[in-house]
Amino acid sequence: MKEVNVKETAKLLLDADNLLILCHIKPDGDTLGSGMALLWALHRLGKHARIFCADGFPERFSFLWPGLDLEQQEAFEPEFVVAVDVAEAVLIGKPWRDQAERIDLCIDHHPSNRGYAKHMLLDAKAAATAQIMGKVLREMTTLTQEIARCIYTGLATDTGCFRYSNTSGETLRMAADMVDMNVGSDEINQYLFETKTAARMELEKRVLQTLEYHHDGQIVFMTLPRAAIEELQVPEADLEGLSSLTRQIEGVEIGVTLKEMTSGNYRVSVRSSKRCNASELCAKLDGGGHARAAGCFLRMPLEEAKNVMLQACLEALEPKK
Amino acid sequence: MKEVNVKETAKLLLDADNLLILCHIKPDGDTLGSGMALLWALHRLGKHARIFCADGFPERFSFLWPGLDLEQQEAFEPEFVVAVDVAEAVLIGKPWRDQAERIDLCIDHHPSNRGYAKHMLLDAKAAATAQIMGKVLREMTTLTQEIARCIYTGLATDTGCFRYSNTSGETLRMAADMVDMNVGSDEINQYLFETKTAARMELEKRVLQTLEYHHDGQIVFMTLPRAAIEELQVPEADLEGLSSLTRQIEGVEIGVTLKEMTSGNYRVSVRSSKRCNASELCAKLDGGGHARAAGCFLRMPLEEAKNVMLQACLEALEPKK
Repeated sequence: MKEVNVKETAKLLLDADNLLILCHIKPDGDTLGSGMALLWALHRLGKHARIFCADGFPERFSFLWPGLDLEQQEAFEPEFVVAVDVAEAVLIGKPWRDQAERIDLCIDHHPSNRGYAKHMLLDAKAAATAQIMGKVLREMTTLTQEIARCIYTGLATDTGCFRYSNTSGETLRMAADMVDMNVGSDEINQYLFETKTAARMELEKRVLQTLEYHHDGQIVFMTLPRAAIEELQVPEADLEGLSSLTRQIEGVEIGVTLKEMTSGNYRVSVRSSKRCNASELCAKLDGGGHARAAGCFLRMPLEEAKNVMLQACLEALEPKK
Repeated sequence: MKEVNVKETAKLLLDADNLLILCHIKPDGDTLGSGMALLWALHRLGKHARIFCADGFPERFSFLWPGLDLEQQEAFEPEFVVAVDVAEAVLIGKPWRDQAERIDLCIDHHPSNRGYAKHMLLDAKAAATAQIMGKVLREMTTLTQEIARCIYTGLATDTGCFRYSNTSGETLRMAADMVDMNVGSDEINQYLFETKTAARMELEKRVLQTLEYHHDGQIVFMTLPRAAIEELQVPEADLEGLSSLTRQIEGVEIGVTLKEMTSGNYRVSVRSSKRCNASELCAKLDGGGHARAAGCFLRMPLEEAKNVMLQACLEALEPKK
C-alpha cells in the first residue's frame, strides 16, 4: 500500500479508463455523494466508468443521479477500481470484499482505515470523504452543478448539517463553494434532516410515552417495545436515531434506550453528556462504544434490565473518590 | 436617513464613544450575537459601551457574555446609539421605541427595515445581521474568540444551522472563519438546536397523540389543547416551533395545527409544501402569512374548526381549473 496525496490521486484517475467505483454497504450520503461526484467527473472527462454498491442504490438519494439509471450501467471489464469512504474491504460487501487485492485506490476519511488498497488517499481530519473528493475533482476538471450537489450532500450528511465537532473551517468553505453553484442546499437539507415517515412519527409518539425520569431528571429511560417495531415496520436505520432523543432533553446526563429484541432480551443504547463516560459504563456490562454513545446487551426481562441500568447509571454519576 | 456601507459604518463607530447598543424585543441569537460582538469589539477598542434589551438578557444565551454581568453595566449618558437587527423602532420596546430620532445607526438585514435611524447599513441578502456585523468589525479591529463566538451564533440562529435557503456561500465562509477560531460550534449547535426542556418533550408526546391524517396522508391535523399548555407551562416561544412538526412528515402537503386559546377558540397555523399556498388558504378564512407558513383564527368549537379547515385544505389541493 502506498499513500498518495491529492495531486497524485488526480493523476492516477486521469491516467485510468474503464473505472469501477465501489461504495460501502448500508450506503449513506457520503459514500454515495463522493462516489457519484467521481462518476459525474469521469463521465465528463469522456471516460468509461460505473458505480457499484452491494446493497443497491436507495431511492432516497436518487437526487444525486438525475437522468441516470444506475441499474442499467454500461458493462465493461474494470481496469481501475476505486473504493470511496470504505474503511475496510469487508464493508464493500459481495463480491468485491473478497478481491481487495484488485482495488487500485481508496479515498477515505476514516482513521480506522485498514490500508487494503494499492494506493490510499486518507485524510482523517476531513469531516467527510466528500471533502477530500472535492479537492481531487478540482484537480481533474471543472465542477458542474451535479458534482457540486453530490459533494454538498456528502459534507452535510457526515456533519449532521454542519452541527458536529468534525465540521472545520475547510468543511464550511468547501460547502460555501458548492452553495455558490446553486445546488439547492435548502431542499437537500429539508429532505435529509427534516423529513420523517408517518411510521417513524408514530414510533416517536409511542417511545415518548415510555420516558421515565430518575435521579432528579439526570437519568432518563426510554423503551422500544418489539410490538411497536414490528407493527410499524420502521426500518432499522430509523431506529438508530431514536436513542439520541433522550440526550436532547435539558438536564439529562445519561439517556438509556432499551430496545426489545425478538428473543425478548434487550439491546441497550446509552447516550451521555460530558459528566459520564458511556463507554466505561457499558464496559462494566460487557458492552462498549464511544465516550458519548455506547451500548450493551442484557439477557433479562425489562424490569430487571431497568434496575441493572439504573444502578450502573447512578454509579457512573457518583463523584469519583 | 442616509444609507452607509461597511467602511463608513466602521468609521462612524470608530469615531464615537459612550455607545449604547439596542437589541430587539423577544431577543434571539442574531440580535444578541450581533449586539454582543459589537460590545466586545468596542470594549477591546477602549470605548465606553453598553447593550440594552427591553426584554432583558435570557440566561439561555449567557455563553455569549462569559464573565460579564449585563444587569450591572457601566452607567453613562449615551452619545451614539446603534440598533442591531431591529427592523422598526417599535421592536426596540420601551423606552427607546419612542426616541427613534436619537438612533444614530442601524445595522440590519430585514428587507422590511423602515429606515428609522440617522444612518443605516442594510444588506437584505445577508442571512443574518451577524453576517454584516462580522464585516464591520473586521474593518474596526482583530476578531477575538468572544467576538467570533457571537458572530457564529448569529449566523447559526438565523439559518437554522445553515439549513435554510438564506444560507449563501458568504454565510458559510464567514462561519468557516469563526470555526477556525475554535468557538466551540458543536456545543453551541447542540445547545441551540438539539436541546429541549422536559416540558417541551412532554408536550410533543401529547400533540403527537392528536395527529389525524386525511386525504391519503396529504393533510395532517394536530391539536394543542389549552389544558396541556397550561399544565406544562411551556413558554410561548416553544409552542411556535411545534407546528413545523406537521410538515416534517413524509407525504404531507398541508399541516394544520389548532391551538386552543383561553377563550376556547382556535388559533390555526398552516404549514404547506410547494403544492399549496398557505397564505392564500388562510386568506379565505380572514388570515394570512407567507406561502409556506400562514395562520388564521377560528371562533368555533374544535370539531367545527377541523371541518372548516379540512374543507379549505381539500379545496387548496384540488387541481386548478
